[in-house]
Amino acid sequence: MLAQDWMQEAINLSKSAEPAEVPIAALIVKDNQLLASAVNQKESRMDPTAHAEVLAIQRACAKLQNWRLNDCDLYVTLEPCLMCAGAIIQARIRKLYFAAYDKKGGAVCSCTESFALPNINHRPEWQGGILQEQASQDLSQFFKNLRKS
Amino acid sequence: MLAQDWMQEAINLSKSAEPAEVPIAALIVKDNQLLASAVNQKESRMDPTAHAEVLAIQRACAKLQNWRLNDCDLYVTLEPCLMCAGAIIQARIRKLYFAAYDKKGGAVCSCTESFALPNINHRPEWQGGILQEQASQDLSQFFKNLRKS
Repeated sequence: MLAQDWMQEAINLSKSAEPAEVPIAALIVKDNQLLASAVNQKESRMDPTAHAEVLAIQRACAKLQNWRLNDCDLYVTLEPCLMCAGAIIQARIRKLYFAAYDKKGGAVCSCTESFALPNINHRPEWQGGILQEQASQDLSQFFKNLRKS
Repeated sequence: MLAQDWMQEAINLSKSAEPAEVPIAALIVKDNQLLASAVNQKESRMDPTAHAEVLAIQRACAKLQNWRLNDCDLYVTLEPCLMCAGAIIQARIRKLYFAAYDKKGGAVCSCTESFALPNINHRPEWQGGILQEQASQDLSQFFKNLRKS
């Protein structure tokens, strides 16, 4: 499958997030197979670290029984925040693909460039903007509905 | 209790980390009471996100049934990495206290200044260097033993 096909799957999955959650989903792919996936569960778990990326990394590591995800790629529907960019470095993810850019909190290229920091022991490749229009529209709609309610 | 007393408690706790783990401990304190604590469990859990700070935040949130730790302070024996600095922002920790500076990966002041980024929605106060000599010695000893074995 191509990067945009995996991202389409992530966007589809994001629609299954609980209504109270910002609808973000992440997939981890190894050898062109889905290894793990997660949606954002911050509100339902009452856990500020339960972003989709962190949960997907934890599940992938549990499956592989290894904290190193060297040959794994991560797909996520929104540019990761500082915590998640750090988790992606910690997990040694090979390449990050994200859809929408996050001008408010994106820590890959929008607000800061986490993967360009000196001294980090792993520097993931990354590509942003894959199916970004679709992902941005979904997120805008969520925040529009949130303001209404 | 004073900040250095809490840090002494964190340093004491760090000694209970499993032998394979970098011995780092974190405490979360609210109203001058210990709310939650954790040691680094990355190797034993095979989870790259299982740093002491992340685990302590998760436990504190579970106790309070709230992902916002607004009135809580976090004590940790080593300057947080990017992921943990991000988690501290996400959890709205009031003030971070750390012992040893981490020139290789510290994301508060040593390698990058996470809390000084523009656009972040919460900016924790912080103070580093509390009992740093004791904490640094313990960490140096760990890495010395690791290289020997």
